[in-house]
Amino acid sequence: MTPIGIVRTPYTATSQIAKGVNVTHADEGTIEINPELEQGLTDIEGFSHLIVIWLFHRRGGRAEGYELLSHPPFDTRPHGVFATRSPDRPNPIAITVVELLARDGNKLRVRGVDMLDGTPVLDIKPYLSNVPEEKLRRGWLETL
Amino acid sequence: MTPIGIVRTPYTATSQIAKGVNVTHADEGTIEINPELEQGLTDIEGFSHLIVIWLFHRRGGRAEGYELLSHPPFDTRPHGVFATRSPDRPNPIAITVVELLARDGNKLRVRGVDMLDGTPVLDIKPYLSNVPEEKLRRGWLETL
Repeated sequence: MTPIGIVRTPYTATSQIAKGVNVTHADEGTIEINPELEQGLTDIEGFSHLIVIWLFHRRGGRAEGYELLSHPPFDTRPHGVFATRSPDRPNPIAITVVELLARDGNKLRVRGVDMLDGTPVLDIKPYLSNVPEEKLRRGWLETL
Repeated sequence: MTPIGIVRTPYTATSQIAKGVNVTHADEGTIEINPELEQGLTDIEGFSHLIVIWLFHRRGGRAEGYELLSHPPFDTRPHGVFATRSPDRPNPIAITVVELLARDGNKLRVRGVDMLDGTPVLDIKPYLSNVPEEKLRRGWLETL
């Protein structure tokens, strides 16, 4: 796995990034794709939303490793790491859906970033479809 | 990156997996998480849908590497690889949203698989929210 670029965001510390249920990330950022990969962005302007796959490269200063039972900051109960978005997971991969605002060459201006400035990006994919709202259940998050 | 498990699906060749716009994958499969990670599934039963992050480990028999301009099988025009779901991307990571049907220990029965039998899984996350339908644009896919 080799990063395809990095994300520029307003956040230099994880404490600046809002966490919790019903938190909406509206801040803007810029995904800077490595110049040699720019052709891979052809036609991306037509999509309103993108899935950004990125690496938890700092994990808030904690050591490497993972915790199978995670303690979200907004709940008193632990939950299985795969039922959370905790960074302390076996593979430190994160996903964020962002709104694509504009493209300038190898740079994508986006809304909805929730990662640290300088975060390495592994992949970008078009966001294509939703789960029917009436079928969506959100487990322990709905009990908060 | 180390797989956390594998997916059992009905597909032994990529030609068996439907591709295209408006294709719905309704086949069932089983995600088998490595037994030592089972505790990480605690509370996952409450979520109706999961995001499965997995590896394109065979890429249809093609050599390693990637193509910045991709040629989807259901279009005559090439598109930038980051505007497609092509497996021939710089990092061979795939995402599938599946419906969680049941859990039995370290095994998750799911609906909506679109990967080959034996595919390595890197991560599982809860599916939490949709993009508002009225804001969703799907670029070149809408012109087919």
